[in-house]
Amino acid sequence: MSSLLEQLIESLRVLPGVGQKTAQRMAYHLLEREREGGKHLAGVLAEALDRIGHCRQCRDFTEGELCAVCASASRDRQQLCVVESPADRLAIEQATGYRGVYFVLQGRLSPLDGIGPRELGLDQLSARLGEGEITEMIIATNPTVEGEATAHYLAQLARQRGVKPSRLAHGVPLGGELEYVDRGTLSHAFGSRSEMAE
Amino acid sequence: MSSLLEQLIESLRVLPGVGQKTAQRMAYHLLEREREGGKHLAGVLAEALDRIGHCRQCRDFTEGELCAVCASASRDRQQLCVVESPADRLAIEQATGYRGVYFVLQGRLSPLDGIGPRELGLDQLSARLGEGEITEMIIATNPTVEGEATAHYLAQLARQRGVKPSRLAHGVPLGGELEYVDRGTLSHAFGSRSEMAE
Ligand SMILES: [Zn+2]
Ligand SMILES: [Zn+2]
Repeated sequence: MSSLLEQLIESLRVLPGVGQKTAQRMAYHLLEREREGGKHLAGVLAEALDRIGHCRQCRDFTEGELCAVCASASRDRQQLCVVESPADRLAIEQATGYRGVYFVLQGRLSPLDGIGPRELGLDQLSARLGEGEITEMIIATNPTVEGEATAHYLAQLARQRGVKPSRLAHGVPLGGELEYVDRGTLSHAFGSRSEMAE
Repeated sequence: MSSLLEQLIESLRVLPGVGQKTAQRMAYHLLEREREGGKHLAGVLAEALDRIGHCRQCRDFTEGELCAVCASASRDRQQLCVVESPADRLAIEQATGYRGVYFVLQGRLSPLDGIGPRELGLDQLSARLGEGEITEMIIATNPTVEGEATAHYLAQLARQRGVKPSRLAHGVPLGGELEYVDRGTLSHAFGSRSEMAE
């Protein structure tokens, strides 16, 4: 039977990127200097995992029926941005001035893993596009093979419903150096070059 | 009122080395892929912070009266190794073949911070040295200015009680912390400890 301290160290390894050494350091830190903060974390974590589910409308995480964005009266319901994950939605929300709404796939099409349109809630998305309020669907899936296949599928879905699909621009990241950009990105950026204005 | 997800992200920042971005990644990871592991962590964390206190004999962390080392019948009670923290004790335990017992200061002498002999339990240590069972006190404080001052103080204390003080050999990098020293170096330094001159 392992000690409670050993159990704590082992439990902390459920966190991403946390190995044995980091888990030890975290456990000692909490025991030595952050007992109150640690107790608060334990309580919030238990409550969050118990109560946080998915928004009925966009599938993002929320503890209510609707997430804050879907519940907001000040968002533009003509633009719908489709992302793979809540983290992607948050990144867009924090980096851009986007004022439309979202749809969170919670994944991407991956037939080999048994993830098809149903698992991504595309029937729900399709019904929403059919309601006629949305005019543009911004497809912000990741530029991976599966993300691109998903984007292609989503674009067809949008066109079938009379909604204009759009896609984030791909290319060399701002501030990036050509030398360190992967070949696929560089090739795409080269092929998609545009004439420079005078 | 912030959402439960925002509260979770904020709470996770109590962990050492975890900033906003990492906390976000951890929260999403738990919600998306590790709900069971996360619930287990919440339970163990609450219980550990509630029940883990200090060993009555060596001041290391334990949920019982005595830690596993102090309670063990197979440890040599003639050798006492003094360390600053439970993490240092663990590092020595994992890297060396030491079979004696420990005393954990839970700090180091630091008069400016109000940490004196009393705060480090040195009255308790002194009484234990006076019992006559211990013949060697291995001083394994960190090779920092405060750690060296603490070592000097401990060596005097040992001599007053007729106990031979020894110190880990050079090999532990100056300014380094035991917790982060590689096992080979630590094991070598431990084996090459020398008696402390007056
Ligand atoms: Zn929503
Ligand atoms: Zn003990």
